[in-house]
Amino acid sequence: MTKLEKQIEAIARRARLASSVVTKLSTGLKDRLLGEMADALLNREREILRENRRDIDGTEKLSAATRRASLIDRLTLNGKRVREMADGLRAVAALPDPVGQVVRSWERPNGLQVSRVRIPLGVIGIIYESRPNVTVDAAGLCLKSGNAVILRGGSEAIHSNLILGKILRETLKKNGVSPDLVQVVDTIDRKGMESLVRQTRYVDLMIPRGGESLMKWMEEHSRIPVIKHDKGVCHLFVDESADIPMAERIAFNAKVQRPGVCNAMETLLVHEKIAPAFLPKMIRRFQEAGVEIRGDPATCRLGEGVKKAKESDWPAEYLDLVLAVRVVPTREAAIRHIQKYGSLHTESIVTEDRGSAEEFLNRLDSSVVLWNASTRFNDGGQLGLGAEIGISTTKMHAFGPMGLEELTTTKFVVRGSGQVRE
Amino acid sequence: MTKLEKQIEAIARRARLASSVVTKLSTGLKDRLLGEMADALLNREREILRENRRDIDGTEKLSAATRRASLIDRLTLNGKRVREMADGLRAVAALPDPVGQVVRSWERPNGLQVSRVRIPLGVIGIIYESRPNVTVDAAGLCLKSGNAVILRGGSEAIHSNLILGKILRETLKKNGVSPDLVQVVDTIDRKGMESLVRQTRYVDLMIPRGGESLMKWMEEHSRIPVIKHDKGVCHLFVDESADIPMAERIAFNAKVQRPGVCNAMETLLVHEKIAPAFLPKMIRRFQEAGVEIRGDPATCRLGEGVKKAKESDWPAEYLDLVLAVRVVPTREAAIRHIQKYGSLHTESIVTEDRGSAEEFLNRLDSSVVLWNASTRFNDGGQLGLGAEIGISTTKMHAFGPMGLEELTTTKFVVRGSGQVRE
Repeated sequence: MTKLEKQIEAIARRARLASSVVTKLSTGLKDRLLGEMADALLNREREILRENRRDIDGTEKLSAATRRASLIDRLTLNGKRVREMADGLRAVAALPDPVGQVVRSWERPNGLQVSRVRIPLGVIGIIYESRPNVTVDAAGLCLKSGNAVILRGGSEAIHSNLILGKILRETLKKNGVSPDLVQVVDTIDRKGMESLVRQTRYVDLMIPRGGESLMKWMEEHSRIPVIKHDKGVCHLFVDESADIPMAERIAFNAKVQRPGVCNAMETLLVHEKIAPAFLPKMIRRFQEAGVEIRGDPATCRLGEGVKKAKESDWPAEYLDLVLAVRVVPTREAAIRHIQKYGSLHTESIVTEDRGSAEEFLNRLDSSVVLWNASTRFNDGGQLGLGAEIGISTTKMHAFGPMGLEELTTTKFVVRGSGQVRE
Repeated sequence: MTKLEKQIEAIARRARLASSVVTKLSTGLKDRLLGEMADALLNREREILRENRRDIDGTEKLSAATRRASLIDRLTLNGKRVREMADGLRAVAALPDPVGQVVRSWERPNGLQVSRVRIPLGVIGIIYESRPNVTVDAAGLCLKSGNAVILRGGSEAIHSNLILGKILRETLKKNGVSPDLVQVVDTIDRKGMESLVRQTRYVDLMIPRGGESLMKWMEEHSRIPVIKHDKGVCHLFVDESADIPMAERIAFNAKVQRPGVCNAMETLLVHEKIAPAFLPKMIRRFQEAGVEIRGDPATCRLGEGVKKAKESDWPAEYLDLVLAVRVVPTREAAIRHIQKYGSLHTESIVTEDRGSAEEFLNRLDSSVVLWNASTRFNDGGQLGLGAEIGISTTKMHAFGPMGLEELTTTKFVVRGSGQVRE
């Protein structure tokens, strides 16, 4: 083992050791720790903002292309964002503790009492990019769900993540709880990451959040199970019987309200019977908001200034003010388009016809399917999970927004009176 | 791509295509298919036994060490076993269909109606060893849960698996359903397997069932998520307040009833206060049944003909009539022994003290923990799941016996009336 490998193994081993503690912490203590972490963040705001400033200054050495306004926006902390992180921790404290919950109980004919009881997964590794608030959100969710966490953020946010990790760890230590419940390892490089994703003895699950190259890298290198938080090629289908003002409102919200996130709409599909009444005005409204439209021939005929869509536009995740638009002859064609080009993330239909809606909801097995609502609702908070660690795009048992429950599994608890197998 | 890689990709692609069909088959049709498959197995028993004979004859070229009686036993089919396979399919048909089940529903303050609805995982690859009945059991469970399956059994069972696969596929075809729902690929070699476990585009989950070398190989090579069905180092702890006749009955059953399976007891831990009353007679009873006892010094003092246990006995999975026995000073010591040497599979406590039992059940997060019952109950059928595809030892969301539900995930279905995000 190289020195680096030894160092990484020690981090993973410490996490496993800490996990045997957090797995059995009482709900009361976990909630108190979350509250004290929130207080500590607020009390040490100045320190946090100072370290964050170093990260922002550090971006000056990046190329102009990398140093986009969106990067700076994601990276920047301020008083409001520090308060939001603290509020987030308190919100997690207020959620019910999943650990120990009895999911279901039944009795067997031989008298065995069987129940399925929630337990933490164990040690979770999270790899993410520029937003430093993920450090605090993920640590809070893992603590509440009884897991130890190893956090590896982006190099551009290193000072912010390290100070946030330090504050959380100091709170644990002050309360006599192992600080290794939360380890921020932003200092390890790709070689170190390679070693980390091979710690199958100590780490139970890796959650990568980021772009396609990170996903590919994880797939290739990780020996630990991976739940990806990958791209969203989200569709909205405006059916022939849609309420047009509702369709306009939803389409506009799905694209424009926050175009840089995974649950924003990327492709708008429109039934040909409603296209003439719906599209011309919709296209103008998008264009006024700065959205570039790339359409199929029928869309080009219905709007001015529409670019011709290429084949590569249909599977594209723009994460920007760009939208692909296609007119389809039938609902069936819309469903097939989504099956061909979608990423199983989020699909929505606008229609007044319940039968059409139910067919759409039934036939498409994306992580979230919606009827008469914006794709932007694929979000743990919005759907009522309380908070989320991300959105799983791996078609595993946790699929879609992952909240506290999705950070746990169940064990079978069996109570008998001497039963044996015949 | 080599020719082999193209061939494997074609298999995986066909499975994906078939999965888009099976995912939406009605419960009635699936149950009818399962019934017809059962009939076909019974009708073609002679053909099945002829092919099975070829496999058994084939083992003659194996070394005596490989060609153990247990291998021949696992491999052999006969009239009774064919009937059991057919009955298994009918039992799966009688189970409720998980697909489409609404797990939970709730309403958000903005009026959105949210539900979590069960959907199939998609395409499942199963790699297993000598027992040909797995081919039929796994195909039945995957069909009922709406998944396409790629089955790769052991080379020693190739003729049996191919004829069973052929019969199942012919039943599908006769009913106008894609036979590629069930593909037996026993003809592919290790190189082919390597290609199979890289089909991330088409295969959602790999389930390996077998020994340690297969698990290591999967961990190293698979780019598809893996749920292992690995070894069981199962413990039974006889507490100081145990009912001695009950403890004897459970210990004997856990070790002797079927020693070659993963839920058989491998280590017996005995509280020192009850050891003098319990162990001498228990050891004799085990020895009369042909069980070799390997004990710590205290156990050696309490029984005749007890071999001295080595450190390597504590983490051992014997799968044979061998048992490690240790006398422990406290319940705490028993729990720590299990935490150190166990494989998170199955642990049982025998005690009349409810407090002791609950502490044991709470502190040990193995997939199945039992009080006053045999370890042999870690089994999907025994615990009431109806049937199982195996026992997950991967601490993922499916942990322990995996039945129909564990072959599904959920999607979020959201019904609105025009809601958008603010």
